[in-house]
Amino acid sequence: MSAEQRLRDLGLTLPEVPAPVGSYVNCVRSGQLVHTSGGLPFDGERRFTGKVPTDLSIEDGQEAARLVVLNRLAVIREELGSLDAVSRVVSLHGFVNAGPGFHDHPKVINGASDLLLDIFGERGRHARLALGAASLPLDAAVEISLVVEAI
Amino acid sequence: MSAEQRLRDLGLTLPEVPAPVGSYVNCVRSGQLVHTSGGLPFDGERRFTGKVPTDLSIEDGQEAARLVVLNRLAVIREELGSLDAVSRVVSLHGFVNAGPGFHDHPKVINGASDLLLDIFGERGRHARLALGAASLPLDAAVEISLVVEAI
Amino acid sequence: MSAEQRLRDLGLTLPEVPAPVGSYVNCVRSGQLVHTSGGLPFDGERRFTGKVPTDLSIEDGQEAARLVVLNRLAVIREELGSLDAVSRVVSLHGFVNAGPGFHDHPKVINGASDLLLDIFGERGRHARLALGAASLPLDAAVEISLVVEAI
Repeated sequence: MSAEQRLRDLGLTLPEVPAPVGSYVNCVRSGQLVHTSGGLPFDGERRFTGKVPTDLSIEDGQEAARLVVLNRLAVIREELGSLDAVSRVVSLHGFVNAGPGFHDHPKVINGASDLLLDIFGERGRHARLALGAASLPLDAAVEISLVVEAI
Repeated sequence: MSAEQRLRDLGLTLPEVPAPVGSYVNCVRSGQLVHTSGGLPFDGERRFTGKVPTDLSIEDGQEAARLVVLNRLAVIREELGSLDAVSRVVSLHGFVNAGPGFHDHPKVINGASDLLLDIFGERGRHARLALGAASLPLDAAVEISLVVEAI
Repeated sequence: MSAEQRLRDLGLTLPEVPAPVGSYVNCVRSGQLVHTSGGLPFDGERRFTGKVPTDLSIEDGQEAARLVVLNRLAVIREELGSLDAVSRVVSLHGFVNAGPGFHDHPKVINGASDLLLDIFGERGRHARLALGAASLPLDAAVEISLVVEAI
């Protein structure tokens, strides 16, 4: 199944590629791997700011994680020309803006992982790191980076 | 020296491969590298929960780190067939569930690094990142991911 | 432009390669990639301890980030013989020792990114992750790891 076709079937469109919020680039390819920078929940504007679960619910956090995946995929499509050039999602690092007593990071980051599975099928199954950051850039609810393998 | 033989000499057995606590997989191989997901201190059941050094001592944290390495090695053995197929431990990312005043992350994560050196010898020497997370999934004391190179 | 020449033009010298603060090594090369360990602000002695922006200003944090880059480059030069053997800076992971209300991690880590651009030019443009750690080893203000591609 084509990831681009699957995206259309899901009625999803990728947001504009966000401008990096510092002196770095959105991704770097080395060999077969594309390393994306940590992405924040942007879709043209900044969304989902604050901490989970005090300022935002777990469900909001999941939506934020989905949104970051969509803008990371926009970065990857720009780099590779098409999501169909992704042969495998290798790894996902997901950081939740959470206080010291939060334990449900996996539920929040599942918002990202589930969407990758939905778009890429078996090729979307990735290794994952999910944990709580003391604070995140621009007070974003989540920050996520991806490494994908290109055909 | 065979890593599998060394494991037997140390009287260690690897725990069962843990089920991921979310919609991801335990590891992904891309080229020569196997990227594991972040592992928690499981050996059949959840162990070593809470923060270092308030809920758990540094020594407990070291034990937790050892335990995560053992279950990460179970993942790697399942992927490669044998620990002897590991040509090098490339990198270890170790996160300690710690409050804002903790500074001894290296001591805690040495529990993981020392065991890798003990099992793999020179091939076990790895690049490392050790730091404090505001919170960790399921309130685990440590979370550790590995990247290893396969023969 | 030669990175070594550029370093001289900027009047910069690399500090001594720091000793790892635990049972790991400063870097591991696998294939074309050199993975450095997380570095702290050392230049012979420990500098820039405490949290940003309460104990240290954002400007101090930027200086700390620059200093870590210099000692990471010392590690990479030792591994590859010369900074001119770096074909690309692939990724930078930057952690700021910050409280729960801090949002300016990108500004702090720009201290590292800007220096890499200055030394390596286009080859210095990297993917980046910047976030807040609850605490860092030895109470360092920042911890930074690099992955670079060798010629």
